[in-house]
Order: sequence, then C-alpha cells, then structure tokens
Amino acid sequence: MCGLAGIVGKRDVAPDIYDALTVLQHRGQDAAGIMTSYQGRFTQRKSEGLVRDVFRQHHMQRLRGAVGIGHVRYPTAGSSGPALAQPFYVNSPYGIALAHNGNLTNSAKLTHEMFQSDLRHLNTDSDSEVLLNVFAHELQVQRQLFPSAEDIFAAVAGVHRRCVGGYAAIALIVNYGIVGFRDPWGIRPLVLGQRETSEGTEYMLASESVALDVLGFELIDDVAPGEAVYISEKGELFRRQCAAKPKLLPCIFEHVYFARPDSMMDGISVYKTRMRQGEALAKKVMALRPDHEIDVVIPIPDTSRIAAQAMAHELGIKFREGFMKNRYIGRTFIMPGQNERKKSVRQKLNPVPLEFEGKTVMLVDDSIVRGTTCRQIIQMARDAGAKKVYFASACPPVRYPNVYGIDMPSAEELIANNRTEEEVCEAIGADWLVFQNLDDLVKCSMEGNPQVDGFDCSVFNKDYVTGDVDDAYLLSVHNARNDAAQEERRAAEAAGRSVIGIHNDDQS
Amino acid sequence: MCGLAGIVGKRDVAPDIYDALTVLQHRGQDAAGIMTSYQGRFTQRKSEGLVRDVFRQHHMQRLRGAVGIGHVRYPTAGSSGPALAQPFYVNSPYGIALAHNGNLTNSAKLTHEMFQSDLRHLNTDSDSEVLLNVFAHELQVQRQLFPSAEDIFAAVAGVHRRCVGGYAAIALIVNYGIVGFRDPWGIRPLVLGQRETSEGTEYMLASESVALDVLGFELIDDVAPGEAVYISEKGELFRRQCAAKPKLLPCIFEHVYFARPDSMMDGISVYKTRMRQGEALAKKVMALRPDHEIDVVIPIPDTSRIAAQAMAHELGIKFREGFMKNRYIGRTFIMPGQNERKKSVRQKLNPVPLEFEGKTVMLVDDSIVRGTTCRQIIQMARDAGAKKVYFASACPPVRYPNVYGIDMPSAEELIANNRTEEEVCEAIGADWLVFQNLDDLVKCSMEGNPQVDGFDCSVFNKDYVTGDVDDAYLLSVHNARNDAAQEERRAAEAAGRSVIGIHNDDQS
Amino acid sequence: MCGLAGIVGKRDVAPDIYDALTVLQHRGQDAAGIMTSYQGRFTQRKSEGLVRDVFRQHHMQRLRGAVGIGHVRYPTAGSSGPALAQPFYVNSPYGIALAHNGNLTNSAKLTHEMFQSDLRHLNTDSDSEVLLNVFAHELQVQRQLFPSAEDIFAAVAGVHRRCVGGYAAIALIVNYGIVGFRDPWGIRPLVLGQRETSEGTEYMLASESVALDVLGFELIDDVAPGEAVYISEKGELFRRQCAAKPKLLPCIFEHVYFARPDSMMDGISVYKTRMRQGEALAKKVMALRPDHEIDVVIPIPDTSRIAAQAMAHELGIKFREGFMKNRYIGRTFIMPGQNERKKSVRQKLNPVPLEFEGKTVMLVDDSIVRGTTCRQIIQMARDAGAKKVYFASACPPVRYPNVYGIDMPSAEELIANNRTEEEVCEAIGADWLVFQNLDDLVKCSMEGNPQVDGFDCSVFNKDYVTGDVDDAYLLSVHNARNDAAQEERRAAEAAGRSVIGIHNDDQS
Amino acid sequence: MCGLAGIVGKRDVAPDIYDALTVLQHRGQDAAGIMTSYQGRFTQRKSEGLVRDVFRQHHMQRLRGAVGIGHVRYPTAGSSGPALAQPFYVNSPYGIALAHNGNLTNSAKLTHEMFQSDLRHLNTDSDSEVLLNVFAHELQVQRQLFPSAEDIFAAVAGVHRRCVGGYAAIALIVNYGIVGFRDPWGIRPLVLGQRETSEGTEYMLASESVALDVLGFELIDDVAPGEAVYISEKGELFRRQCAAKPKLLPCIFEHVYFARPDSMMDGISVYKTRMRQGEALAKKVMALRPDHEIDVVIPIPDTSRIAAQAMAHELGIKFREGFMKNRYIGRTFIMPGQNERKKSVRQKLNPVPLEFEGKTVMLVDDSIVRGTTCRQIIQMARDAGAKKVYFASACPPVRYPNVYGIDMPSAEELIANNRTEEEVCEAIGADWLVFQNLDDLVKCSMEGNPQVDGFDCSVFNKDYVTGDVDDAYLLSVHNARNDAAQEERRAAEAAGRSVIGIHNDDQS
Repeated sequence: MCGLAGIVGKRDVAPDIYDALTVLQHRGQDAAGIMTSYQGRFTQRKSEGLVRDVFRQHHMQRLRGAVGIGHVRYPTAGSSGPALAQPFYVNSPYGIALAHNGNLTNSAKLTHEMFQSDLRHLNTDSDSEVLLNVFAHELQVQRQLFPSAEDIFAAVAGVHRRCVGGYAAIALIVNYGIVGFRDPWGIRPLVLGQRETSEGTEYMLASESVALDVLGFELIDDVAPGEAVYISEKGELFRRQCAAKPKLLPCIFEHVYFARPDSMMDGISVYKTRMRQGEALAKKVMALRPDHEIDVVIPIPDTSRIAAQAMAHELGIKFREGFMKNRYIGRTFIMPGQNERKKSVRQKLNPVPLEFEGKTVMLVDDSIVRGTTCRQIIQMARDAGAKKVYFASACPPVRYPNVYGIDMPSAEELIANNRTEEEVCEAIGADWLVFQNLDDLVKCSMEGNPQVDGFDCSVFNKDYVTGDVDDAYLLSVHNARNDAAQEERRAAEAAGRSVIGIHNDDQS
Repeated sequence: MCGLAGIVGKRDVAPDIYDALTVLQHRGQDAAGIMTSYQGRFTQRKSEGLVRDVFRQHHMQRLRGAVGIGHVRYPTAGSSGPALAQPFYVNSPYGIALAHNGNLTNSAKLTHEMFQSDLRHLNTDSDSEVLLNVFAHELQVQRQLFPSAEDIFAAVAGVHRRCVGGYAAIALIVNYGIVGFRDPWGIRPLVLGQRETSEGTEYMLASESVALDVLGFELIDDVAPGEAVYISEKGELFRRQCAAKPKLLPCIFEHVYFARPDSMMDGISVYKTRMRQGEALAKKVMALRPDHEIDVVIPIPDTSRIAAQAMAHELGIKFREGFMKNRYIGRTFIMPGQNERKKSVRQKLNPVPLEFEGKTVMLVDDSIVRGTTCRQIIQMARDAGAKKVYFASACPPVRYPNVYGIDMPSAEELIANNRTEEEVCEAIGADWLVFQNLDDLVKCSMEGNPQVDGFDCSVFNKDYVTGDVDDAYLLSVHNARNDAAQEERRAAEAAGRSVIGIHNDDQS
Repeated sequence: MCGLAGIVGKRDVAPDIYDALTVLQHRGQDAAGIMTSYQGRFTQRKSEGLVRDVFRQHHMQRLRGAVGIGHVRYPTAGSSGPALAQPFYVNSPYGIALAHNGNLTNSAKLTHEMFQSDLRHLNTDSDSEVLLNVFAHELQVQRQLFPSAEDIFAAVAGVHRRCVGGYAAIALIVNYGIVGFRDPWGIRPLVLGQRETSEGTEYMLASESVALDVLGFELIDDVAPGEAVYISEKGELFRRQCAAKPKLLPCIFEHVYFARPDSMMDGISVYKTRMRQGEALAKKVMALRPDHEIDVVIPIPDTSRIAAQAMAHELGIKFREGFMKNRYIGRTFIMPGQNERKKSVRQKLNPVPLEFEGKTVMLVDDSIVRGTTCRQIIQMARDAGAKKVYFASACPPVRYPNVYGIDMPSAEELIANNRTEEEVCEAIGADWLVFQNLDDLVKCSMEGNPQVDGFDCSVFNKDYVTGDVDDAYLLSVHNARNDAAQEERRAAEAAGRSVIGIHNDDQS
Repeated sequence: MCGLAGIVGKRDVAPDIYDALTVLQHRGQDAAGIMTSYQGRFTQRKSEGLVRDVFRQHHMQRLRGAVGIGHVRYPTAGSSGPALAQPFYVNSPYGIALAHNGNLTNSAKLTHEMFQSDLRHLNTDSDSEVLLNVFAHELQVQRQLFPSAEDIFAAVAGVHRRCVGGYAAIALIVNYGIVGFRDPWGIRPLVLGQRETSEGTEYMLASESVALDVLGFELIDDVAPGEAVYISEKGELFRRQCAAKPKLLPCIFEHVYFARPDSMMDGISVYKTRMRQGEALAKKVMALRPDHEIDVVIPIPDTSRIAAQAMAHELGIKFREGFMKNRYIGRTFIMPGQNERKKSVRQKLNPVPLEFEGKTVMLVDDSIVRGTTCRQIIQMARDAGAKKVYFASACPPVRYPNVYGIDMPSAEELIANNRTEEEVCEAIGADWLVFQNLDDLVKCSMEGNPQVDGFDCSVFNKDYVTGDVDDAYLLSVHNARNDAAQEERRAAEAAGRSVIGIHNDDQS
C-alpha cells in the first residue's frame, strides 16, 4: 500500500505536501518523495526512510513551486530499493512525474507492449514505471504541443483501456498541472478537496481525507472509479469519467486495517465502520455463547481499539488496555559466535498482569494473517494469569493473496489457508476464536454508503473484482511473494539489478 | 529525565542493553549510548538520536563483553549536544564509566571543589560529569590497587555526603563490575532484577521494571534510597545502605506522566495508580457537579488513556477515542520569502467529529503545563461540534519548576503559575476545568505501597524534599531554563562550548 | 572540460572504467559517474566528488555488466550541482545513457526545437542533456524495433546536422552497445583502443590514450572528426564517417595545459609538444636577449615542468625545483567575528630560498590567465631573495573566452584582455615577460602530425573554428560566466532550480 | 610518522592549525585532529581522513580559542582505527590534551607501571596514550593548584626519566598553555617559531619549519633534544633543558624520504641534503663505472626528483621526467565471482616511451624497501624500450626495522634483509644497482650542520641510538608489524577492541 498527495496551490506547496505525507505515513513507511514544478522545471527529493528523515530544510528550500505531488511507499515485491522511491519521471512527452498506489495485474503484458510498440525502456520491475509509461505514451499519441484537458482525459481513457488492476495515481505534467485518476473498479482510494485563500482556490488530491483535514482543505468528493481529475497549473478544475463501465467496488481491507479511522472513504466513515464491526462481533458472541463469562475485553493496540471498545460496550463488559505497546522498536543484531535472536512479541507488547490474573479475557484484533504474533500474544495472556483466553478477529479468515497493492504473504503462509476456523483456533492456542462473518463485514461497510456497488473482498472469498485473476496469475504472485522468493530477489538486487529511474538529486 | 540499564551477564550483553534502552526510550529520545567492558578495555557507541538510529550491526559487533551499561537521554539545560551523550568516562582511577538520571542541586559548589581539591577538570556544564568525578575521586582516595566491595561502598557513601539532589546512577568499573546507587531520598527510580541461565545468574539494574520484564529478568527489588548495589564482574551481588538518614520520597510525576504504566516503582503499580487517579477525578466531578450531563469521556492520547477509562467507568459514561493521534510527526520548514509556519496541534491530533457533534465532552489529560496545546485541543473540540467542553487534569496545577531531573519550563511559562484554577480554566477556554486534588493524587500513589515515606510533590507545592532549594537556586534554574536562555545557550554551544568527554568511536 | 571512458568487454567492466576515470581525473574533479548495462537494465552510480570518493565496494558490486560508460566532470556554467553528474539518461527510445565532453554553441536554439518538434522536456540548462535528447530523437525517428549500425550512424549524422560546437560523446544503448562520436571539427578528443583476452577482443573509447595504456588497451586510432564508432554488445566494431565536411582542428589548449603529457592526441605526443614549446621559448629568449644572465630556470609545478626542462636544456642553464607544491590543499574558513581569510598562493607553493638568493631566475608557467597567482608567485620569488624575476608563458596571451568546453573566466577577467604584453608584464610585476608566439605554438603541435588541418586557437586569436560564434554569443557567454553571474546562478540553483535527471540510486 | 602543530596566538588559532596540518599532511594521511582551549574548556574535532575532509565550516566555528594543538596521523601498528585519532585527553589533573609523533620502546613496561602505581587505566594499545598519562601523572605529583613553568618542566623531566624512544609531543593544558618537548636523543623533530602581530607575539611549535613558513611564522630554533618549551596562555615563552644527558642524533630517514625538502631540520636544509645525496651518487657512479654510457637520468616521482637532478647535473647527463605520476589513486574492488585484481604500479606511474626507447636509463629513487614496486618499474622501463636499466637508491640498503615511529615492514619483508647488494640487484631485475654508502649519506646530512652529534641510522646499521633495543624487542616489533599480524589485529579491532579515548564530538 502507498499514500499519495498532490496540490495545485497559490504558493510553494512542498511544505503542505510534506505535512500530508506525514499524515499518510501509515500507508507506507518505506520511502518518501516529493516532486514540484517551478518555472518549467522539476525539482525533487526522494529517499528511503520515514518522511521526517527524508526531508531536511535544504531539500525544502529547493522544492519550489505551487504545483507538486508526493508519495509514501509500502514495500512490495518489485518496488523496494532506493532506486524505486516515487514519484517516477519520464522526459517525453512534456516531462511527466507520477505517483502510484496499487498494483496492475497485467503489467507483464504491458511491459512487453511498451517496448514493442512504443520503444520505451523500462529499467525496473515496478508496475508504477509501467503505468507512467502507458500514460506518457497515450499522451504522446495525442501529438499536441499544448495538451488540453481533452487530450489529458483521452490519455487517461487510454490507460483504462490498457491497464487492469487496482490503481490510484497522481501525475504532474510540467507547465500544465496535475492529473489524478482511479481504476474503473474504484479499488484504491483517492479524494479531492479545496481550500480558499486570499489568492484564490487551491485544490488537493490525496489517498485519504484525513490529509485534507489536517491541511484545512475541505473534502469535495471522492474521485469516482474511472474518473480523471485535472487541475491546471492556473488552478482550473476539470473532471471527466474516462472509463467505459465503471463500478464502485472499493477494497474492504482499507476499512478493516489500512485506513486511518478518522478518514472518510467513498462516503463511508472508517471510524463508524470499525464501531459497527465491534458491535457485529458482540452480537455474534451473544448468539454463539450467551453465557460467555467474559470478564474483560482487551484490544491488541492500536488498530483494533475502536472495534474492541464498541464490542465491550455492546456486551456490557469492561474494556481495558491490558497490553502496553512499546512504540520504539529496535533492530535485531547478531553477535559474534551467536545465532540471531528472534525479537519476541514481548518487545512490542507488555501485559499488565492486573487485567489478566484469574480472568476470562476476550482479546480483539483487526485480523489474523500469519497467526504467529497472535499465538504469542495468547501465550502472554496465559502467562500473565488469564483463566481463559478468547480471541476475536474483526474480519473473516484471510485465505487468499491480495493482488491490488496490499503486500500480504503468499497463500500458504496465511494461517487460515486450508484451515477451518476450528483448526485456526487450535493453531493459535485460543480457548475460543470468533471471526467476523463476511456478510456482516460487508454490511458494516455498506451501511456507511448504500450507493457503493460492493467491495473487493478477494482476500476472504477469492473473488477478484477485475475478473482477470486466475490460478496462473496467483501462482506467479506466489512465486514473487513468498519469503524465499523475496530473499532471492533482494540478493539479485544487491548484485546489480537495482536501478535508475529519477533519483535523489543530492545526498546530503 | 533519562533512562538507565546495566547488566552483568554470562555472554555479550550489548544486545540486551539495547533492547532495554528501546523499552526505556520514553524516558529520553534525545541521545543514546552503550559502554561495555571486554578483556580489560571499554568499548562504546554513543550518539544523538533514537536507540534504533544510533546502533547498527557494526556497532554491536564491536560492543563485546558480558558487562555493560546504557543510557537514553532527555535533553535538559546543560545536557544537550552530541558531546554529552552518556555514559561518561574517566580513566583515573581504574577506568570508570557512568550513566546518570537526575539532577544535582549543588553541582556548582561541587564543580569548584572538584578542581580545588582534586585537580579534576570538568569540560562540560553537565552535573553527570560532576557526579562521575565525585565518585571517581572518592574511589581514588581509597587508594586500592584492587578495590573491594567495601571500597566501592565507601566511595558511594562519599558521594552521598557530597552530592545533593535527585540521582540514580549506574557505573561500570573496568575489570570490576557495575555499581548502581540512588539518592538518599529515593527521588529517582532504580530497580534490580535477576535471570537464571544455564551458565549462572545474571543481574540487571534499570530505571523501570518494564525493562526487566521484556528481557525475562525477574524483579528482585527496588534499590533503596541511599543504597548501593555492586555486581562484580564474576557475577557476585553485594548490597549496602550507604546513606546516613535515607528516606523514601519518590518523585510523584513519574506516576502522573513519566513512567510506563506497566512498570512497578517502589512497589507501586503505575497502571493501578493511574486508574485510581481516574476514579478520584470521577468522584470529584460527582461531588462538584452531580448533574454534569457529560455525554462522553475522551482522552488526550496516549498517557491519559488509563485514567480516562477509569474515570468514564466510575462515572458510568461512554469512553471514546475522539482524537486520533498522528504518530509520524514532521518538521517545520521555512520556505524562501515566507515566515515559519507553526505546526498546529491539528497535525498531531485529529478529531473524529461523530464523537463531538452536539455533545458535552469531558477531555482528560495527565497534566496541564504550558496550556498552549490544551487551549488548541479545546478549540478543536468546539470546531468539531461539541456543545460543551469540560477538561480534567489527572494531577493538580503545575506551578513550580522541577529541580530533580525533569525538564519543565521555567515558572512563568507555566500556565498555572500565579493563576487560580478558575483563571487557568478561562485561559485555556474550557467550559469547566477539574484538577486532581494534591492529597488525592498522593493517596492514589500511596495506596500502592503504604511503606513509602511520602512523595516529592514540589512541582505542585514548592516543597523540595532535599531541603536545600531556595529562591536563589530557583532563580538560577529559571535563568538556565527559560526559553530565551536556552536559545542563547544553544548559540553559545554552537559557537564552541560543546565539548569533549568520551564520544563516539566512529562515525559510520 | 570533462573526461570520458566506455568499454564493451567480456566481463564486468565497471572496475576498468573506474580505473580509467582515475587516470582521466585531471580532466574534471567535480563529479563522477558510471553506468553499466546488465541483463537489459541500467545500473548506475553518480555523485559529486573525486572518483576515489564517489565509488565504494557496494556500488561496484551493483555495477554489473560487460558494457558501460563513465564520466568525470569539470564544473562549467550550467553544469554544476549534484543533479548534473553524468552520464545522463532517457528511457525513450530503447533506454540511452550518454556522457559528454565539450560545449554546444547552439544549445539555446536546440532546446527550443526539442520541445516544439519532439515534445521532449529538458529539465536542466546542461547542453549535455540537449545532446542526449537530440541523439535520442534522431534514433527514434529511425523507428526500428532493433536498430542496426546503419540506424545508429544515421542518428549520429542527424546529430552532426543539428548540433554545432565542440563535442565528444559516448552513448550506451541498453541491449545494443556503445557509440562514440566526435564533432566534425575534431575539437574535443576521443580515442579507440582494443585489448585481446582469452574470451575475445574488448574495445574501449576514452578521452585520452593514457587511459588505454593503464588498462593494457592498445591504441587503434583517434576517432576522426565527425566519425561515429559503434561497438555492439556482442563486441563487433563498426566505424563510419557521419559528417558532411569534417576537418581536423583540435583544441590547442589540450596541448598547452589540459591533457596529460603521456597522452597521444590525434597522432601527436603531448610530451614532445611541450618539450618543443620549451625549446621555442628558449630560442625566443636567445633572440630577444642573447645576454640574458639567467642563473636558473624554475618551473611553476606541475604542468610547466617539461617545457621548463627543455627550455633550460636549450639555454644551457641550470633547471631547479625552486617551488615546492603543497599537494594537500585546505578549505577557507570564516571564524566568528572575522572576515574570510584569503588563502595565499603561499599555501600552495613554498619557495626554496637557496634557489633564489641573489639570482636572476626565469620562472616558467604553461599560461597566464587571470594573472593573480602569477603576480603572487613573482613576489614570493623576490621575497626569497631573487635579484631579477623573469617569467615565461609557454603559450601566447589568453585574450578570449573558450566556447568549446573549457571553463575560463569571462574576457574582462583575463589579464591579457585589452592589455599589451608589456602591460601584462607590468601588471604581474615581472622584470621581463616572454610569451610564446602563436605561430611557434602551432608549429610545436603541428610538428607531431602534419596531417592536422590546424588547431582551434580561439582563446588567443578569437578565430572560432565552428564559424558561428559572434559577439552576441560571446556576450551571452560572458553573462553566464563572469564571477557575479556564477554567484547568482548558484543562489538560483540553491533556491530550487537544481534538478532531476538520472541521479544516484542510493545514498550510502 | 605523524605531524604536530601547536599555537598560542592572539585570536582563534584553529584556522592556522588547520593550514599547518595541510602543510604537514605528508607526515600522515590517515587521521587528523585539532583541540583548542576556550574559556576554560576544550573543544575538539578528530576523525579519520585527510585534513581537508575531516574539518568543515561548522567544526571550525566550534573550535574557538587562542590556544590549540593539532595532529595528523600515519597509521602504525597499534594506532589505527577512528578511536585513536589524536590529540588524546585526560581530565586529571587540570585537563590535558596531547599530540605525539614517535614511538616509545618501553611502553609495555610503562603500561604496567601506570596501573600499578598510578591507578590509571589505558584503554588502547597506543603508546601515545601511555605518554600522555606519564606526563599527566608526573604533573599530578607536583600537587599544585596553579602549576608554574617550573612544575611543568619538572613533569617533563619525569617523562624523560621514565620514557625511552623517539618522541616529539605537544601538550595543551587547559587554562595554562602548551608544552612541547622532544626526546633526549632528538630523534623526532620539533621546531619553534614566532610571529609578530599588532596584538603581540604569537608562538608556534611544529614538526617541520615549512609549517611556520606558510603561516608567516619565523623560525626561532629547533627544540633541543630533551628540552621543553612552555608557552603560557598569556603568551610568555619558557624554555628549559629537562634531560640528564641529551644528545642530538636525529633520524636520518627524515632527510632521505619523510620531510618536505623545503624544511630546515636541526639547522639542516633537507633540500640541500638531497642535492648532496645526488652528487654523492654521481661520484660513486663515476668511480665504479667511469664509462657508464647512461643516456638519461629519470626520477621515480616525486621524492627522488631533487637528488636525481643533482645526480644528472653532476654526471653531465640529461635529466628527464620519464614517468608521469597519476595523482588520483583509486581503490581496489572485487566483483562478484572474481578475485581481487591487484593494482599494478602502472596505475600510479606511466612511462613516456620517448625517454626510454633504445636508451640506457638510470632510474633514481630515494630508497628501496620491499622492492616490489621497484621491480615493476624496471620492467615498465624495459617494456617502454629501454636498452639497459640502471637503478640508484639515494640511501643504503634498508635492512632493519624502525622502532622510533616510522612504520616499515618487518625485517623479512625488506628486500635487502639477508641479501647482498648484488642479490638485491638481481631480485629487482636491474642491469646495475647503485646504493648510497652509509658514510656518504651521513656526510650529506652532517655537512648541513656539523654541530649534530650524529644520526639515527638504525634501519641501515641496526645501531639503535636509545641503546635499549635488543633482539627480543625486535621480535615483538616483528610480531606486531608483519602483514599477517596486522591483518589479525584489524580483525580483533573490528571484533571489539577498538575503543574510546576522546573522540569526535559530533558526526555531521
């Protein structure tokens, strides 16, 4: 997952984009970048690291210009390494930079086409470089010295015709402005906002509305599936539906885990959705075990806190912070003559024994993925004196890989893959395990905006909304994503594959 | 405030000290250091920054040795700058390194003595350098080629005779072991733990018990006020009361704000203390306004969460996470031709409107210091639609400076200084403001361990337990601490005052 | 001035390119870069600094591939800043990287065309980016999926049609190989060499033959003016004259100052040329002052040593190293409350008094440009006790700017601009000043290879061989190059103009 | 070998010390450091690297104070690693920093004493730390609150009683001034100079007079063997002979190779000495082979140039720069799947074939140590077409290790160890080899100052002037110095032995 922001403002926008990226940092802590356009030239700063570490005063002073875009990166197979910090850049036509969140499922085919028909070289495995070059090529074939909004929308329509997958993107065309667009299924989010200033209206595009809030921008709307929004350098706003048959089928995992609770997504309050998830869980608990004897509901901090509170409230049971989170996580070192010592979950979470001693506790987490952490937490609860340890997952069992930009383990690394709920319960060592029902989960989200056509729930039900994901594709994803494959990839990159693009313009 | 850890183990201890420092990172995020002793030599790594940024694999590989100490620093007047990362070191006698948490109130006098009688040069304004040199001198006058536990305890007794203030320290004497001691009033905390291994018992000293927990050490005891604990390089444990009239009067602000809730301090659970603070606040609210019409209790994350939960529970009112905390805070930049743009509190906290709209909200924070943030938060609550905004502080008004190692603003920068509670309420713009009563606060803490002789509550009542703090001293503190003074100091340091000690042994 | 190297080898070529760049370091100490092609991808490392500082082991390990190019940069107006380290890159068509030595005199016009007709964005003021994009465009219009040698030569012919100025370049086309070409006047140098290995023949292009020597490549030939040399990835060599009316008019300043003496350039030994310069000077001295009473000939180290030796030998006078050069030059610092203290020439050169006391000395330098250093050296000679100080310049008075890639001060900063030789003598404070005659200088060079059509001597005679340099152009050069303009430019760059291209792919 | 500088001036001295260190950089390129004293405190900056890389503007701005010392380090066994950049520091008594050039031959014994009698911990293997602590202890036992010049001279007398070896040192005592002293044999050099300013007289101590020249200080005198020079913070100069039986027996290798030719050492011009060496060689050549048929004399740049010129002049033969030195030396890299590729001498020196073809050449170098380079150069001369290759060494065969601070290979790595001159000739592949006679070498030096008692010529004749060097000591040196031992030591250091001292006070 990644985070995007773009602004056409009335004065230097880099500080605002910077602030937006810190607010979107939960969407990607791996790398960050900003590109702005000033007097017909790009300026940029990109590097691996947190936003607060990547940008210094002297970088900001060079990032002049009232038009700019920014990106925070979550590392996925094919996107890691310093060379691949975004935005990416091509100089032909016009000079275009692009920041991307999502994943194309037909990038292999596109890469081949790109060279055959367009003679464009791709120097990385990143589908973001593919997306940028498809957009650039589609714009180039318009053959306009001064591209109009029409030309730009025609190019986005070309992108939608050629690209399949989940993608939200913001492109910066030097001298012209910024363009935001979202895949025809609306899988990945993108919102549009405006801010009035004494010098006129400023527009902003971002992955989540919280970035607008913090900068004082007012949310106008979500960018619609397939829609393109073009804000010219002068500050004119143009919107156009560029896809043939758009549908709104957003990724439900944003609601479960990824998005900030204070964000509005496609008209849905993530906060309220999570509260409803907790309430639904409570009802399921009541239905299954009316005499559950739970003494206390304890969240696994931080994501599950809202759902757990609502669940406790609905059950009429005490809600307590039984685990303290260590916010400063360290590295793992190997000393001479010793093996690597695994960091235990204990170094991230410490139980408050008072809340466990002699009690039946209901632990609540947003989801169960690999199950490793989960198992250790349950053991910690027992060690802290819990009589019984129940566990609730605010979403159904995660059984299939995500192919639209969320970096999950490959199928066989998922604990619920090929396991019944009872087998998962046993595997994690809980006395009882409750999963959210999928239709309840969908209802919790849908209640926020009945206009939504549905949700991509493929990690739960293998129903990939783009319709092109078959077992052959999943096998290729598996090959790229499993732990061994990633290790090998890293070695290959270290050996020379890591590459150019448009990188940092200095090193200090 | 600072954090300390020291271990005499059976194999390389640096990775464990590293983990301990990450767990103690909340006590100081400014600088970190580890020194170990190996084959009769010190090795070290110190630098400004978070623990995770200061230590890399190649540092760890050099930090050999089964005996070591570590430090995380909170910046205070006279302690900042890269030169002053701890532990500090002197080579005479024996080779001693020391890590210190606290503040000496007679360091000016000691500095003078140090040169007059001992010819020892102090190259910094740091009272930690003073403490190390007093200890070194007292050990030197024992004139032993091979110092025994007796000699070491005699030296600590000398320290207690000469030094006044709040101090906890761990010293590492090369070839001999580590020594921990705590001031005769027990102002600053220090705990002792042990861990059994196949190679024998390992001992650990740390500022808070949570560091023991995470490493699997079992808490033996708090180091008593005035006590010294010596663990020889071979792993023998020696303890001795070295002060004439020790009393246990720990700093109550550790319970209010500083310590991790999952720590035990002087037999008191910080977690339970905070719950009792919330309950006491609830009772005060009920007593003052039985018909308060509060709809929801909302904590200012993260410290006040426990007290707020207990308060809500006691009041029988909903508890909700109404503010989302942005965990990734950015810098403030100045662009050409623009003034510095103040980061608003909005960039740290974002309200969830749902929890405010049309409601009477009770916001809870651990304390009110300058009041600036507080005022902005209340305004945010109103902007989010709150009908009425009440505010509760889990501790009484902070009116006086701390002189025992907590870096607070000077008196006139404290909003409650020279203001009544009503005036503070007006100044922060609340509809109602409730402070904890001081005797309630003390009771909440005392209930955890009735053996305690009392608490240092000087920031609330100006009663400094060491008895030597007069207005002249406070004036000198003020001169050193107010914002203007700190600015000047920084300039002076930049101009050449920042200095040597024992610094990093490399820069990569 | 810059230095170039490119190799198509049989195994990883980066270490050889690295060695070549160290040997060419005298041509540019400002920045360095290497790009290689490996498995259809580029890898690169570029940064400001000396070659030995820019490349580390971990960079080299990533610079895989048997095909690569490298560049060392001399900073000129419009080329400085970390963003502009070469090689440069475009991804369309094919993926092309290019390293350039020289300067285009029509780059303003080309920049305009580039956007108008080709929609190519140029993000810098660098004429190297222009040259790359012209070449890329000319190659693109061939519209070949698999470009042949013919297509490549057609593209170079297009470059020669459009570009005017002095330029030598080496381009790397991913999957195809490297292409070297030289402007139709042969102003800037480029040589071709080969090395036999057990795996087959390897080819190398470089700015100077000394880079071939050191790597064990045998000099095949100079690249002819207007010629292109294409070495395919498989190692096939293709050569073709691509210019309409090529002439060989190389820059004579390479012989005077720039080139290494052990280089062969266009069939001419630089070493012998410098010896002949010394002999010619000796003859002029004898002709003008047969009874000169010179006691000793002393070179200004290091460039003039060869000419000075030959001069002394021809005059039958002692040759002595009267000045010791400090090889470790420091920075200039400003201390608080003080003005910048100018580094005197004394910190670079120290006289050996023995060689000056009471003597008539003839100091020899390669050229006199601003005259500042010269004046100080003469004063130092007097202070060291010289009776009379004569000065000889191995070339004629430098009166006009260079527009083909050598960064000289603007005309009015040249001491000989608008001054007679006598006035220069007076200005530098010499007792006698001898300049080489221009026809003697040309003869010294021509003697090495009578086939040469002539030399570009424009800095001496304002006769710019490309025929397009008029006063308007010189004025624009002046505006860009004088000290004040450069200062302003640096400020502008710092303020945001410094820009992307293809930069470093990491920062460690 | 190392370089030292110290100044008591009238305003900030760090920039001058910096300039002095760049001039002394030939004495050590491994690390550099400056410490100054300002308002009773030390400030410092030390790091590995060249002077120009170690110090930046922000370091200088902190290096305030009119009193300071500096050091450049040549790496020797036991002195490498970033922890050991000098000056070193102890805080007791007074605060003393010290910079040292040389080597103590009894440091093992002193280290033992240091702990036994003084309880002083030494954290490194460096004899410089020993020297500092001996000086500190001897000053401490004077027990003066305000040490007078007498006390300081008494301390230096104590150093001379306890320490044996070659040592020149400059110490900075905070609040008091700087002290320079030189071993009682005068093995290592130290000079004293003064500069008049409008604010009064400034004094400077340095390893070589060239550092005085460049800063405009006038050479007063060499510091005599055993003498101490104390310059108080106020600028008073005190001098005292502190050794019982001083003799002047300076290291002759300074004249052969180490010192800059423009330095005066003990009244001797290094430049003139090298000229005399060339003349003496010429005479030996004439004596041995009156009909030598040498066509040209060619120096191995840069050290031998002066001797070679004088030799050529005396022989009446042409002197030519037949080898071009590459001034930019690169690293050696290992590529995946390849072995380390040895840098050949070819990358440092390139022959000018013209000067070799068909000629009998006499190559001249200052000395022959391992012989490896020598052999390659001779081969290069042959490859360049030389008919016969003769070789002359300006000093006799180097057969024994240096124990006074010059880092030479261990005995068996010296090509002349256990080889006759004829065998060396054969081993290096020369047609004829001429070594300087030892008595000629001594005469060349002695002629400059007949007052000298003699020279330390131990590397030629095993006659170590301190009289304490026996085979057991040489064996220990051998164990520490041979290549294998150094490798092992580096590994040990990497594994944890590298250590504290007083290191850099920041890392930016």
